[in-house]
Amino acid sequence: MTEETIRQAVESQGFLKLVGARLDKVGVGTCEFSVESRDELLQHHGFFHGGVIAFLLDIAMTVAASTVLGTDRAALTAEYKLNFLAPGVGERLICRASVVKAGSMLTVTEGKVFAVKGGKEKAIATALGTVANVGLERVS
Amino acid sequence: MTEETIRQAVESQGFLKLVGARLDKVGVGTCEFSVESRDELLQHHGFFHGGVIAFLLDIAMTVAASTVLGTDRAALTAEYKLNFLAPGVGERLICRASVVKAGSMLTVTEGKVFAVKGGKEKAIATALGTVANVGLERVS
Amino acid sequence: MTEETIRQAVESQGFLKLVGARLDKVGVGTCEFSVESRDELLQHHGFFHGGVIAFLLDIAMTVAASTVLGTDRAALTAEYKLNFLAPGVGERLICRASVVKAGSMLTVTEGKVFAVKGGKEKAIATALGTVANVGLERVS
Amino acid sequence: MTEETIRQAVESQGFLKLVGARLDKVGVGTCEFSVESRDELLQHHGFFHGGVIAFLLDIAMTVAASTVLGTDRAALTAEYKLNFLAPGVGERLICRASVVKAGSMLTVTEGKVFAVKGGKEKAIATALGTVANVGLERVS
Repeated sequence: MTEETIRQAVESQGFLKLVGARLDKVGVGTCEFSVESRDELLQHHGFFHGGVIAFLLDIAMTVAASTVLGTDRAALTAEYKLNFLAPGVGERLICRASVVKAGSMLTVTEGKVFAVKGGKEKAIATALGTVANVGLERVS
Repeated sequence: MTEETIRQAVESQGFLKLVGARLDKVGVGTCEFSVESRDELLQHHGFFHGGVIAFLLDIAMTVAASTVLGTDRAALTAEYKLNFLAPGVGERLICRASVVKAGSMLTVTEGKVFAVKGGKEKAIATALGTVANVGLERVS
Repeated sequence: MTEETIRQAVESQGFLKLVGARLDKVGVGTCEFSVESRDELLQHHGFFHGGVIAFLLDIAMTVAASTVLGTDRAALTAEYKLNFLAPGVGERLICRASVVKAGSMLTVTEGKVFAVKGGKEKAIATALGTVANVGLERVS
Repeated sequence: MTEETIRQAVESQGFLKLVGARLDKVGVGTCEFSVESRDELLQHHGFFHGGVIAFLLDIAMTVAASTVLGTDRAALTAEYKLNFLAPGVGERLICRASVVKAGSMLTVTEGKVFAVKGGKEKAIATALGTVANVGLERVS
């Protein structure tokens, strides 16, 4: 898919707007999302909520897989696994995802989330996932 | 932890309010969350966003693990893996989580998400996770 | 695939013979494998080795997925995640796997391993996996 | 733990000998295992069996975690997830594992398996796992 098609699909997602996340970069097999801290994104200890971190990984791994597909295919996340590495403390989260292996049916992807505090990045979560490459008729 | 402690912790989470999810039931080793459909929770094909589904699983598996801990311990999700089974189509999502194995350091949990459409439930995601039991000093 | 095709495929695997595992039961969407304890299957604390447990889950989830495929398709395990629940202590391991959701491209499966000691079963591992349904030309 | 303690523990494992795997390198937070191809390690299409690949990842991620523990602690694998990337074709498998994040209770690890064919390495599997750091009294 082209970057334009991807941006249109991503930016029309209601949940992306609700969370306030932004697609900062798209390359071939890679992408980067970020979100600024605000009270609505935190859990009861004041850290970024695990659900926000999972959301960033989910969308970033799917978008990274989309960048290596033809225009007649859509990327549907089949599954992923994530490990939290440290509490999400800081003014901003950045999520970087990339393609590990592009296959005809499945794309294996990985993603990492970093918390930015005082301008310094710290890895707070890592994920490994599988995205299914389906015909467009499957999702429309 | 007591149900009251758990409810207070959960209901003070900004992200829970933003998503509009509700803790419907808490038992010993189990819990149930739900969320009603609205545009802000959907992705660009009109299905519930994967990030909403992951958020429900994340919080429900952590709460299920909390119910089997002493009052001096907190449940921190270490990791989980989820599989999407079908698109999230319907007026409501329900997430049910339960403890598979309670250990002294780690609690293994599972969760399932169901989409409710016309009053009928359909399983749309399943997860398996690990929650760490930490001393309260670790999180406060 | 028919039970006979599955049994032939499974029983011709060198690694199955090396480990000494046996396919005890095959149903539609389910199967059961077992292996008797012997020194070669243990780790240095005398428990069944994690690798034996993973092998049983790997093969059982793939076989369970095979049972719901047509004769022109093969089941290739794409990925799985397993959690160890307790040390593998006993005279025998039993692994039961089943299909969670059969799709056209992917089959989601789950498996559990039980250690049998003095005739009593104890769950020692649980897994959740994804099997890809591929045309036979992909594997031959 | 010291390299000597780790080598003794690993090399006394019956399953390691049965598979014929070898611990080739141990560093701080890293290790490398390998195994030569032979009929007993293959599945029915002639590829290395998924169970052999899982075994290498299981043991290598546990050993990598062991290298960053004190002498009074043991590493017990809590869980892992692996993705197969390509069929395991070649004369040898190499598994490299490393520590992603060392915590007081849990160590997050990753591992990759490469098939070596005609002297060239190809990545065939990747994994992400969690190892629990337990007191020695828990395992002896």
